Amino acid sequence: MTTADRTPKQDRGRATRQRLLEAAVACLAAHGWAGSTVTVVAEHAGVSRGAAQHHFPTREDLFTAAVEYVAEERSMALRALFPQGTADRRAVVAALVDLYTGPLFRAALQLWVAACDEEQLRPRVTELEARVGRETHRIAVDLLGADESRPGVRETVQGLLDMARGLGLATLLTDDAARRRRVVAQWAELLEQALD
Amino acid sequence: MTTADRTPKQDRGRATRQRLLEAAVACLAAHGWAGSTVTVVAEHAGVSRGAAQHHFPTREDLFTAAVEYVAEERSMALRALFPQGTADRRAVVAALVDLYTGPLFRAALQLWVAACDEEQLRPRVTELEARVGRETHRIAVDLLGADESRPGVRETVQGLLDMARGLGLATLLTDDAARRRRVVAQWAELLEQALD
Repeated sequence: MTTADRTPKQDRGRATRQRLLEAAVACLAAHGWAGSTVTVVAEHAGVSRGAAQHHFPTREDLFTAAVEYVAEERSMALRALFPQGTADRRAVVAALVDLYTGPLFRAALQLWVAACDEEQLRPRVTELEARVGRETHRIAVDLLGADESRPGVRETVQGLLDMARGLGLATLLTDDAARRRRVVAQWAELLEQALD
Repeated sequence: MTTADRTPKQDRGRATRQRLLEAAVACLAAHGWAGSTVTVVAEHAGVSRGAAQHHFPTREDLFTAAVEYVAEERSMALRALFPQGTADRRAVVAALVDLYTGPLFRAALQLWVAACDEEQLRPRVTELEARVGRETHRIAVDLLGADESRPGVRETVQGLLDMARGLGLATLLTDDAARRRRVVAQWAELLEQALD
C-alpha cells in the first residue's frame, strides 16, 4: 500500500483545499482580481475545476477564504517567532512590518481595491479585514507587552500597524527595504519610549 | 461679446485639459483602472473623444497626468492652510493624514495596483509616485518645522507619512474616522516629543 492509499479521503480533501488556497493567494498577488479566476487557480494548484468548485462554490468564496487562511498561517508564524512573549521590541516591530511586505499583503490589497466597486465582494472583504485586523492587533499587543489600560497605548499600537500597512504600500512598486529598515528602527525607538 | 468669446484659444485649451484631469481622477477613484478609459472620462468631462486624445494621446498619459495634477493642487491647498509655516503640529498631522483619505488617494491607489502588472504603466507610476512622495515629504518637513539635520528626524517624518498612507488604506472599505482621529492625536503627541 502506498502512502496515498492510506491517506483518508478527508485528509486528501484538506490537502486539496490547502493547495487551492495557497495558489489563490499567489495568483491574486501576481495577477490581480481581474486576472484571478477559479479556473486559473485550479490549474495552478493541479486540481480539476470541478474539485475546486466543490470546495469553493464561488470566486468570492475562494479568494476571501484564501486571504484568511494565509493571514492565519502568518499570524501563527509570527507568534512562533517569539515563543517567550515580549521580546526585543525592535525585532517585534520589524516582524510586524514584514507581515505587510509579502505576497499576502499584495493579495489582500488586490482584494480590497476590487471590493471598492464589486458589490458581491465588498461586505465579505470588509468583514474579513476587520477580523484579520483585530487578530493582528491582539498579537502586536501581546508581543510588544503593551499595557492597553494606559491611556494612548491602544492608539500607539494601532498607529504602528497603520504605519506597517503604509510601508507595505510603499514597497508595492519599488523595493525600498533600506528606507524601510531606517524608518522601522526610528519608530521602534519612539515606541519603546511611549510604551515604557 | 460674451466671456467665452473673449477667452483666447489657449485658455480654453487649458480649461478643457483641467476638466479632463479632474474627471479622470474622479473616474479612477470610483471605477478603478479597468473601468477608466479615455472615452468614459471625455464623456464625464463633456469633451469630445478627439479633443481628449489631442490633449492626452494615451490612456497612461491621461491618468498619470491626472494624479499628478490633483496631487499638486492638494499640495498647494495644504501649504495655503498654514501660510505662517510651522503651526500647531497636531493640526498639521491631521491635515497631512487628510491628504490620504479622499478621492485622490483612492485614484492613486487604483493606479498603483494596476501598475503592478501593467508593463506600460509601471515605470511611469513609479516615477510619479517618487516625485509626489518627495514633494509631500518636503511640505511635511516645512510645516512641522522639523530639523532634518538631527539624527532620526527624517525617518520620524517618513514614518508619519507611511502611517498616513496606512490610515488611508484603512478607510478604503469602512469609514473609520473616529478611530483615525484618536490615532492621529496620539501619534501627533509622540511626534511632538520626537521633534522637540
